Amino acid sequence: MAKVLTPQGDDFPRWYQDVLAKAELADNGPVRGTMVIRPYGYAIWERIQAEMDQRIKACGAANAYFPLFIPEGYLQREAEHVEGFSPELAVVTHAGGKELDEPVVVRPTSETVIGEYMAKWTQSYRDLPLLLNQWANVVRWELRPRLFLRTSEFLWQEGHTAHADQADAAAYAYRILREAYEDLFVNVMAMPVLVGRKTAAERFAGAINTMTCEGIMRDGKALQMATSHELGTNFAKAFDITYLDANGDTQYAWTTSWGSSTRMVGGLIMGHGDDDGLVVPPNLAPIQVVVLLVKDEGDAAAQAGAVTEELKANGVRAVLDDKTATSFGRRATDWELKGVPVRIEMGPRDLAEGQVTLVRRDRSEKQAVPVDGVQAAVDHLLATVQADMYSRALADRDGRTATASTLDEAAEAAQTGPCRLPWEIVRGEGEQRLAESGVTVRCLQRPAGEVPDSEDEEDLVAFVARAY
Amino acid sequence: MAKVLTPQGDDFPRWYQDVLAKAELADNGPVRGTMVIRPYGYAIWERIQAEMDQRIKACGAANAYFPLFIPEGYLQREAEHVEGFSPELAVVTHAGGKELDEPVVVRPTSETVIGEYMAKWTQSYRDLPLLLNQWANVVRWELRPRLFLRTSEFLWQEGHTAHADQADAAAYAYRILREAYEDLFVNVMAMPVLVGRKTAAERFAGAINTMTCEGIMRDGKALQMATSHELGTNFAKAFDITYLDANGDTQYAWTTSWGSSTRMVGGLIMGHGDDDGLVVPPNLAPIQVVVLLVKDEGDAAAQAGAVTEELKANGVRAVLDDKTATSFGRRATDWELKGVPVRIEMGPRDLAEGQVTLVRRDRSEKQAVPVDGVQAAVDHLLATVQADMYSRALADRDGRTATASTLDEAAEAAQTGPCRLPWEIVRGEGEQRLAESGVTVRCLQRPAGEVPDSEDEEDLVAFVARAY
Repeated sequence: MAKVLTPQGDDFPRWYQDVLAKAELADNGPVRGTMVIRPYGYAIWERIQAEMDQRIKACGAANAYFPLFIPEGYLQREAEHVEGFSPELAVVTHAGGKELDEPVVVRPTSETVIGEYMAKWTQSYRDLPLLLNQWANVVRWELRPRLFLRTSEFLWQEGHTAHADQADAAAYAYRILREAYEDLFVNVMAMPVLVGRKTAAERFAGAINTMTCEGIMRDGKALQMATSHELGTNFAKAFDITYLDANGDTQYAWTTSWGSSTRMVGGLIMGHGDDDGLVVPPNLAPIQVVVLLVKDEGDAAAQAGAVTEELKANGVRAVLDDKTATSFGRRATDWELKGVPVRIEMGPRDLAEGQVTLVRRDRSEKQAVPVDGVQAAVDHLLATVQADMYSRALADRDGRTATASTLDEAAEAAQTGPCRLPWEIVRGEGEQRLAESGVTVRCLQRPAGEVPDSEDEEDLVAFVARAY
Repeated sequence: MAKVLTPQGDDFPRWYQDVLAKAELADNGPVRGTMVIRPYGYAIWERIQAEMDQRIKACGAANAYFPLFIPEGYLQREAEHVEGFSPELAVVTHAGGKELDEPVVVRPTSETVIGEYMAKWTQSYRDLPLLLNQWANVVRWELRPRLFLRTSEFLWQEGHTAHADQADAAAYAYRILREAYEDLFVNVMAMPVLVGRKTAAERFAGAINTMTCEGIMRDGKALQMATSHELGTNFAKAFDITYLDANGDTQYAWTTSWGSSTRMVGGLIMGHGDDDGLVVPPNLAPIQVVVLLVKDEGDAAAQAGAVTEELKANGVRAVLDDKTATSFGRRATDWELKGVPVRIEMGPRDLAEGQVTLVRRDRSEKQAVPVDGVQAAVDHLLATVQADMYSRALADRDGRTATASTLDEAAEAAQTGPCRLPWEIVRGEGEQRLAESGVTVRCLQRPAGEVPDSEDEEDLVAFVARAY
């Protein structure tokens, strides 16, 4: 089939733009840096959102909604926070037909406003932990926007929690990292992630610890898929989030925040896509199976409709494509572009023999299956594709991961993939030196892969890479 | 039980404020006119959203997302539209650390930006109808905000569709009105609504027809719960939404838009609430049943846990309240405030006899039920409460609805409830005269209750009322 996309090997960024356009995922908005998420792109986001929401609720957090507009003064109360966000703020100066007495900022994140309300709602140790989550749009003005990866407005969830002590806050931030984020990436999105601790230089503005899930894209660059932060008592002190402990003494709460965004859609595209377009893992796919009527002859249309209905009745997200006015080849290419994991081709020759052809998107494999065995074959194939996609991504990442023992080696190796080296070689001046080659420390791990409690532990491994 | 709320009869607006605070539904945001939706209020919104989303998708529309920021020039392209929204706009003049070359407005609604993209995506008659929906926040600066009813920022869904001709557009706007909106209000929220056509004076800015669902609150005032608009070719002409018809001729598309918002939560509160707080119908309730452990004695806690799990396993949204450190009375009052439809009291005396007490929220009725018959009794009671809540609301509304034959009679009757009178008496000067008494035409219907195609039809009935 003729290629409709720039091949990844020729120009990866252009391939990415081509996929966004041809798979009808997103478009640039009229205001610079903003994004229009088209129905198919949004359907993928809705699936991520539903799976994430379920996991966040299973971790005990409840959804709430806080305002888009924040008084400018709020951001200034936490020194590092204001410094981190000032250059990115969008400011409303006029509203209701006149100039505002005090300009308001469009939220770049809601730590500050949520801090204000946590202070009101937290009186006693009995009110803790207070576990909140919000699905919202946020704005961080971008000079070099890229759709899904870095846009001036993006959609995300931001969790904000308050705890009685540091241990409880740390445990919760870690639980979200593993049970909400990593679990979703691995088991739904079929993406292996490096789970670790950020260096002090890479921490969230105002955090005492930032943990991350880093995905590796098909061009070898890293993408931060989600982060979870311990904020210590920094925000509690800035917003007076205190509680009475069991002895009646006033204590500051320990807070956390954690977020994941529409950037995950970018991760999906670049983590699994190939020269034919997007490849969506079955557990995530808004459309798992497309039933493609090849020709409207005899009872083919009726049979295709029946197969589709049977799949749907069995809980498979299936759609029927019976638009035979468009050529078969064109339609097949379009469904490949959209990355639908399984295609069922129902052609006259196959049907005459009582069978259909199953085509998997992730590999060039077809199989003929009797019409009455479609449901079982589809169930099996969806599970196989899901497992194979994860294995492919893991092997790819591990195959690309170099090991270095000097900064120069690491800087060079990281041009084509992630690289591991001892943290003791990097710490101090090393991060700055790597930055000169466009390389950053993505995360720190203990030798056996655990997330360290501090960057001062011995024998830590630094994963460095170029990153989105 | 002692009343914790201002009684409705004493001061309805204060009762409303009391419910918002005591049932922990919402709070004022830090920027004037904005709102914090607290977890329980948000859980109600999520239930409305899920039910609405399902109905909208069943009508064939797909979700998408368009940017928060709109170039100022977009709003000016449709003359009535800009006039309708200008005084309410919030304007971003600074972003990314500098003044913008062109200020951008925060969307008050997305007709204009969606119009721009519909023009790109609509080429041929084969692309029509184009059926889009968006869940988003919008901003309309409010000088007299009221939580959920009128806030500077609110959450809503806005549908936007493009069709080949007027008949198809009109049919779709009507279908949404009935199948997405009215069906949800009646069958999920247990709220009867007047479904009709708005007068020209009450139409949406830029529409050729606005249809509405009007709820009647317990103080006799009307609340517009949702609206559906035919926009004719006004936006198509302003944004050049054209298509090639089957003959290859260029035609303007006919567009519609339709919306419903967090205001529906206000309608729920005021449509069903009583002097003890909120009353939530079972089909909507995020918590349908609370299992209230009266005392932690013997195996009472274990039994309460088992009953809760059994209900949940059977698909009932049940929670266990075993916080016996707080008094039974206080907890019972709190659950009444939150309007949970059914409470199961598990007290020592009842349990000794192998039974529990079911208490319904909408009426003062209790019944003793054997422990092993709880599931069946709950299923039956939830269905009964749902039906009874609708009947109560319908009887209340119809009982309050007066019939008038002059403007003066109508203006007076409408001070306490809706009033019907012949539209021919109102049209012309009548709307202005009624407005002097704070009364508006909520909608027009044909004598048998259908939605008219034009306000020029004969024998139309005008429903007039005071309104939120």
